Amino acid sequence: MAEFDSAEHPHRRYNPLSGEWILVSPHRSKRPWQGQQEKTTAEQRPTYDPTCYLCPGNTRANGAVNPAYEGTFVFDNDFAALMPDVPVGSVNVGGLLRAESESGVGRVICFSPRHDLTLPEMTPAEIRRVVDVWIEQYQELGARPDINYVQIFENKGQAMGASNPHPHGQIWAQRTVPVEPAKETVQQAAYFAEHGRSLLSDYLEIETKEKTRVVLENEHFVVVVPFWAVWPYETLLVPRRHVQDVAQLTDAEKDALADILRQLTIRYDNLFEISFPYSAGLHQRPTDGQAHESWHFHMHFFPPLLRSATVRKFMVGYEMLGNPQRDVTPEFAAERLRIQSDVHYKHVSA
Amino acid sequence: MAEFDSAEHPHRRYNPLSGEWILVSPHRSKRPWQGQQEKTTAEQRPTYDPTCYLCPGNTRANGAVNPAYEGTFVFDNDFAALMPDVPVGSVNVGGLLRAESESGVGRVICFSPRHDLTLPEMTPAEIRRVVDVWIEQYQELGARPDINYVQIFENKGQAMGASNPHPHGQIWAQRTVPVEPAKETVQQAAYFAEHGRSLLSDYLEIETKEKTRVVLENEHFVVVVPFWAVWPYETLLVPRRHVQDVAQLTDAEKDALADILRQLTIRYDNLFEISFPYSAGLHQRPTDGQAHESWHFHMHFFPPLLRSATVRKFMVGYEMLGNPQRDVTPEFAAERLRIQSDVHYKHVSA
Ligand SMILES: O=P(O)(O)O[C@H]1O[C@H](CO)[C@@H](O)[C@H](O)[C@H]1O
Ligand SMILES: O=P(O)(O)O[C@H]1O[C@H](CO)[C@@H](O)[C@H](O)[C@H]1O
Repeated sequence: MAEFDSAEHPHRRYNPLSGEWILVSPHRSKRPWQGQQEKTTAEQRPTYDPTCYLCPGNTRANGAVNPAYEGTFVFDNDFAALMPDVPVGSVNVGGLLRAESESGVGRVICFSPRHDLTLPEMTPAEIRRVVDVWIEQYQELGARPDINYVQIFENKGQAMGASNPHPHGQIWAQRTVPVEPAKETVQQAAYFAEHGRSLLSDYLEIETKEKTRVVLENEHFVVVVPFWAVWPYETLLVPRRHVQDVAQLTDAEKDALADILRQLTIRYDNLFEISFPYSAGLHQRPTDGQAHESWHFHMHFFPPLLRSATVRKFMVGYEMLGNPQRDVTPEFAAERLRIQSDVHYKHVSA
Repeated sequence: MAEFDSAEHPHRRYNPLSGEWILVSPHRSKRPWQGQQEKTTAEQRPTYDPTCYLCPGNTRANGAVNPAYEGTFVFDNDFAALMPDVPVGSVNVGGLLRAESESGVGRVICFSPRHDLTLPEMTPAEIRRVVDVWIEQYQELGARPDINYVQIFENKGQAMGASNPHPHGQIWAQRTVPVEPAKETVQQAAYFAEHGRSLLSDYLEIETKEKTRVVLENEHFVVVVPFWAVWPYETLLVPRRHVQDVAQLTDAEKDALADILRQLTIRYDNLFEISFPYSAGLHQRPTDGQAHESWHFHMHFFPPLLRSATVRKFMVGYEMLGNPQRDVTPEFAAERLRIQSDVHYKHVSA
């Protein structure tokens, strides 16, 4: 029999950050697709939309009026999933029905007053302001005794449940540490205890040597399609220096983060020449007062598109009941992203 | 401060089958929705479609011709994610890049020759034939030394990635046990070791007493919206008798399973008067030769719709980076399902 070739044969890959496996089926991308097609929404948006609840000066559903903001703008989510003042209580029936009240804060971060922009179309200085807001919010919310984890994220595009195209992200900050960062806490701590180095430092060392999964590098950050990526064009953005959270970044690192975010999102948009949908977010040390020395701050990008602007990957049946499955290899995806131009397709003069 | 009320206040619930938590935000269902709307596809399909690769007598993409089948029809998936003959091999770079070749079998199960039907529109006897096929397949594939887990599932509807509306399910059977049943194996074994009874037997006892989450019951099966449901109208179908797999079901139990499947899917369709999309599947004992006494066979139904035929729940941003979150309580969802008629809306004479 031929030798095992991960570019060709079905296999499983292990995610050391979560401790879970995924199934990779490289040969399967050839199957015909007669299923759902994503809508490609009209690209021309006005710079200001009087009906948008995030544009400067507009009135929101709850009657509040947005200021005439010029950079970023943060406000408490009018329909937050988390609330600060929740009566403390719990349920426990035979260890099988268990519930606990949960408190927290939900906020919205407008990235720009311009309704028509997205991160890849903003300037490095404008993106740097978004980075600064992330840091401020992480520090402010993380300092509260009732907040032990701050989840900062962005849902971009209708395919990812974004209910408004105005460039914005969200913060859900809460009393307990959610499941995914809790898994990463356990895995990183175990690795650190054994090796005395952060899991992601050692991982970056391997990736920057192998190069096959590296999408982008600058002085302070590396973007890879992780070896264990689930979504077709999933990426992991990691600082070279082992820092536990964004508050520890130097000024140069903050600029480098803004720079690489712009570079990455431009390549995403260029891949299928469309405003590329994704959910992305920061994973960093819980704000529960513990040192979490093993934590290595990073960002995940989870984009759903598979083959084109209209054909997405569905994480359904087998994926929900078994485990995630992907069709193209991470190495293939990394190469496709790497070869994209660093000029946004909308800005290429004909 | 008021007392904690799980029908009103944000809280976390624990899933004892997976060992993970979810966030429940009962108050949040009121938020306005301006995002993506699902397409409601035309309901009138022909009984036979000459372009469908699952209809009797038609030629498939690989040139094979379907027989003129009259009940169910099973064949090897022409674009399977798993293949039986994969060269054995693995990768391990510093414990951080880990891969293993994976072998297995992918099959398609046509539920009916009729292109226009779905489970809720089939007769109990026709659904019973599907149950029998599940049992045959589980036994046949499970007996193979190279197959240690048999995942039987159905993706229904475009919203769930189904690429063909012809009523059908799939089987992905493989060498290793996927992540989700592996978690359930650990959790059920721990419970059984402590209590000497299956986790789901004790859980059913609580639910059939409390009644608030019960959707349907017959002599042999119970359907509940589990206390820890993630999807808005997620359900769990459990046999009253503690059996490890479908092969142990008695004749009466097989009939009862067909009956309750029909009852459940009729109520799903009636909820929003649409052919209700979902991914569903069987979870049962791994076929690795071990006894797995603690395993209690069950089925999961994961439907995406939230508020209507066109507004779905998105498991994005926070859900991907933190943990699943739901807006309506399981108790609310169970009641909505319970009050639906047991006559399919298409069959109600005006
Ligand atoms: O096999 P199908 O129906 O073409 O594909 C569908 O089900 C599979 C198993 O859940 C998924 O991996 C695919 O993403 C989905 O589109
Ligand atoms: O808060 P939004 O943008 O209304 O809602 C979106 O993001 C949330 C957080 O990821 C999800 O819970 C919702 O399902 C999604 O539609």
